[in-house]
Amino acid sequence: MLAEFDHGQVWLVGAGPGDPDLLTRKAERLLCAATVVFYDALIGPAILGIIPASVRLVPVGKRSGRHSRDQDSINALLVAAAQAGERVVRLKGGDPSLFGRAAEEITALAAAGFTPRICPGVTTASAAAASAGVSLSLRGLARRVQFITAHSANGQPLALDWQGLADPGSTLAIYMGRAAAGDIGRNLMAHGLSAATPVLVACNVSLPTEHLVRTRLDLLAFTVDAVCGDRPTLIIIGDAVGGGTVGDDAVAADRVLATAVQTHAA
Amino acid sequence: MLAEFDHGQVWLVGAGPGDPDLLTRKAERLLCAATVVFYDALIGPAILGIIPASVRLVPVGKRSGRHSRDQDSINALLVAAAQAGERVVRLKGGDPSLFGRAAEEITALAAAGFTPRICPGVTTASAAAASAGVSLSLRGLARRVQFITAHSANGQPLALDWQGLADPGSTLAIYMGRAAAGDIGRNLMAHGLSAATPVLVACNVSLPTEHLVRTRLDLLAFTVDAVCGDRPTLIIIGDAVGGGTVGDDAVAADRVLATAVQTHAA
Repeated sequence: MLAEFDHGQVWLVGAGPGDPDLLTRKAERLLCAATVVFYDALIGPAILGIIPASVRLVPVGKRSGRHSRDQDSINALLVAAAQAGERVVRLKGGDPSLFGRAAEEITALAAAGFTPRICPGVTTASAAAASAGVSLSLRGLARRVQFITAHSANGQPLALDWQGLADPGSTLAIYMGRAAAGDIGRNLMAHGLSAATPVLVACNVSLPTEHLVRTRLDLLAFTVDAVCGDRPTLIIIGDAVGGGTVGDDAVAADRVLATAVQTHAA
Repeated sequence: MLAEFDHGQVWLVGAGPGDPDLLTRKAERLLCAATVVFYDALIGPAILGIIPASVRLVPVGKRSGRHSRDQDSINALLVAAAQAGERVVRLKGGDPSLFGRAAEEITALAAAGFTPRICPGVTTASAAAASAGVSLSLRGLARRVQFITAHSANGQPLALDWQGLADPGSTLAIYMGRAAAGDIGRNLMAHGLSAATPVLVACNVSLPTEHLVRTRLDLLAFTVDAVCGDRPTLIIIGDAVGGGTVGDDAVAADRVLATAVQTHAA
């Protein structure tokens, strides 16, 4: 492993969904061999806790509550650290290649003469499905799984291929979809997806504070408003998430929600 | 961890793409705590090598070259092991929730009174992108990533939403697409995707024998025929895979391929 991690080398490392047990063995080794780790705001204390105290930790996330850095500043920090001969880990939530903005950092490092390497991670949709006891694909029923990000810049309407997304034979996993939940539900139903399509709303996936709620498409926005607060939220839509083995907590939450919906409708 | 793994408990565990370093820490712990591991044919010796000799290993894969078992037989084996009070790991390549047929096994175990749990894994598309030094999503260019399986039962034509798949703003990862590569290329082009769309063909992802080749959509079937043999192959299509940092091997393979294409065209 150390042979792969010379001074001046940058590794983009996927941290997985949050549970440090869901780090890969490779990610763990890279974190322990680094001299500096630049980490996103969504990287929690449990993961940072496995990094040796001798490794310098630099938060670069926009939600960190500390100094907010834009992507250009992060790129510049990575280049400077590589030029200084550090062994650099850029630690990203989930998998770097899925909505991790890895391409911008790869391009910036390449322009400065560095070739970053990537350590993949468990993406949050896989972990949410695992926690809920469901499969994202279903043989014969959902042989297509679509991942999108619904983070809209500057509050602009989402420009998405709603017709392609509203495929009843597909499972749709939406990253960063909390703010757009209302738009998503309306658009999918307007393009033909049934109001009763099963939905899984998953907050703080894989952490001790994980919260899973099963709902249906016409109640998506209401559910998100009722249960998510400002927690990181993944939304999964499709028949594949209709069953599953989610525990008592989620069942209890469903009951609370059902009561709330009745009150709301009254 | 052992508290999570009582006798009679079944864990469906994602092994990741093949490199044992890409197992999660949790998968490793479950494999070491199991009394029996039922594993797919695609699980290689490197991963089996980290399992203690005291754990019983049972191959259940259809490609194992040993006895071919159908899904019903696998379900029955899992139920019997749980009933016998074993600590059961069902080890699957990649992530269990993405084309791992997890749902059939969950349903069969539930019918027998058992509630399996799932340990997610790194899916092969994430690992292929990491090896190639690319991101599957690209801000502003590919904010939708579609995963499909192109394994067609009994040689029937693929019934897929080609219009939705042929979205130039999407990245398409195709699992088990080797045999259908010709169909896939023709259908995507017939539905408007450019012949020059970048393609990454990835064989034996993350293993020492990994082979990555960049090509273009109109050469997809030819490339697959020329380089994949009978190796497990993932195909990624879209502008997001046009760049990247694939190493000398792949570049050399591209040269070989270019020569072959010239010969073919002559």
